Amino acid sequence: MISILSGGVGAARFARGMSQVVDPEEISIISNVGDDEVIHGLHISPDIDTMIYTLAGAINPETGWGLKGETWHTMEALAEYDGITWFRLGDRDLATHLFRTQLLTEGESLTEITDKIRKRWKVKPRILPVTDDSLKTVLYTIVDGEERKLSFQEYFVQYAHRPTISRIDYEHLAGLTATTSVIETLEAAEVIIIAPSNPVLSIAPILAVPGIAEILAKNRDKVVAISPIIAGEAVKGPAAKLMAELGLGPSALGVANYYRKLISAIVIDHKDSDLKEQIELSGMRALETDTLMRNAPASMNLAASTLKLVIRDLN
Amino acid sequence: MISILSGGVGAARFARGMSQVVDPEEISIISNVGDDEVIHGLHISPDIDTMIYTLAGAINPETGWGLKGETWHTMEALAEYDGITWFRLGDRDLATHLFRTQLLTEGESLTEITDKIRKRWKVKPRILPVTDDSLKTVLYTIVDGEERKLSFQEYFVQYAHRPTISRIDYEHLAGLTATTSVIETLEAAEVIIIAPSNPVLSIAPILAVPGIAEILAKNRDKVVAISPIIAGEAVKGPAAKLMAELGLGPSALGVANYYRKLISAIVIDHKDSDLKEQIELSGMRALETDTLMRNAPASMNLAASTLKLVIRDLN
Repeated sequence: MISILSGGVGAARFARGMSQVVDPEEISIISNVGDDEVIHGLHISPDIDTMIYTLAGAINPETGWGLKGETWHTMEALAEYDGITWFRLGDRDLATHLFRTQLLTEGESLTEITDKIRKRWKVKPRILPVTDDSLKTVLYTIVDGEERKLSFQEYFVQYAHRPTISRIDYEHLAGLTATTSVIETLEAAEVIIIAPSNPVLSIAPILAVPGIAEILAKNRDKVVAISPIIAGEAVKGPAAKLMAELGLGPSALGVANYYRKLISAIVIDHKDSDLKEQIELSGMRALETDTLMRNAPASMNLAASTLKLVIRDLN
Repeated sequence: MISILSGGVGAARFARGMSQVVDPEEISIISNVGDDEVIHGLHISPDIDTMIYTLAGAINPETGWGLKGETWHTMEALAEYDGITWFRLGDRDLATHLFRTQLLTEGESLTEITDKIRKRWKVKPRILPVTDDSLKTVLYTIVDGEERKLSFQEYFVQYAHRPTISRIDYEHLAGLTATTSVIETLEAAEVIIIAPSNPVLSIAPILAVPGIAEILAKNRDKVVAISPIIAGEAVKGPAAKLMAELGLGPSALGVANYYRKLISAIVIDHKDSDLKEQIELSGMRALETDTLMRNAPASMNLAASTLKLVIRDLN
């Protein structure tokens, strides 16, 4: 049983590779929900959808999000209203948000709904939102000396992650809890993999849910991360820029240190072999391979290498 | 200044005719909102949209609702989820509901939003929801000896108005009020026309808003209705069937009696000339013309005849 803590595009590509390397029914994805957003009254779960569409082979390969062969009639009509169109929702993708929102209003949980969406797409790995409670990643930037709050999607999509971030917070009500499925899945896992996702934007909200970090820490010898940063640069998105802005070190070493209480090993790229010694001095094993998932075979190779390295490490 | 109390398709065709007969900026439409519905989390205002699309010349002429040249990609994808597809929402039409819902969540009123939608479609008559409060038409039917409640859209669309109705109710919170715009518009009106809409489904919810029926009764000599029933049959929809089920008389006479405290005149079809005497015995003038709006010129003729007859009647 393999559990993968997941954000969006990088995690989805990794999970797809993993599902071609092991029995996909052995895989459980613990998904970030911190970048979920309500727009137009619709509940949108970008990381869950990217994961499902990718595992279904339905993702738009050029963007890494949304459906391939998509049409945009609703967005075009919304532009005529001067409506909110910076968050692009394709016509077929919209059906996912309509379906999810309707069932939420009927009282179903995000976990139950996600499972229905997964099954419609014939996706075999289980996809588990880390929590059914509201959890929102918010970012603070300084504008004219004043702190200004941005929602995840405002930061990420509307402002294309250009603002300099002073701090990040994960907003939730008192009583935020992980779902029972997530807790049971993590406790039963033989290997827990932190996907090559943005540590502070995608993985941190998962770790912010009470109990999750504790399970990882307790099972540290089973937990491995994959650095999303190669040679000081993020493969995609603002991971390196953000980690630098937050003083965390924009490198595989920074990532290792960020996770050091939770992981016993980290997979880094060959290009970062010079960091191996420093990482190991911090008490983790550094495992070297090709981590750039430029295509499906590369994703399979990364998944296979990760597993082989972890299992060798465990034995 | 002409005010038209309006439901959906029949009212929209009548209003379109009227806007080609008089200066459209002299027309105010007071719209029913009793069949508004939240589906998929989206606030849908079918009567308002039918009115705006019709006045914009954008309505699908075959169905009388929705946009012409529409595509259905979202509904097709929603069908794959076994989502709710009995309420058909086209891809471009969806933009209207997304736009409306977003602005409602931002705190704008339905009146303000409707005005923005109207302006985007370059529609000149003002369209005023009778209230910004929630008001829901619900219908009761007897199933196995038990009363069962149906929402308007369940009755009208999902069950294609087949169930026999035992009673109708208009649900709202205490404190339901007409908007200031509606009250001011009605009080300033020189002529108030009750459109050829379903009396119990489309007009009654407007009259259920406190103050509206009183303004009409006070100005009874300015108020005229057009019968939506011709020779005992509704032109479209279940008006005759429903009026019979509710014991109101499925005829132009039944319509006249239903409105008798509010109107001084009713426009009936030539086919109902035999009812004229009975209507006039009830204290209203009955004005005879062609009321079937089979095309745009017929709508213009009905609007022109109605005005001429009312104005002659007023003088």
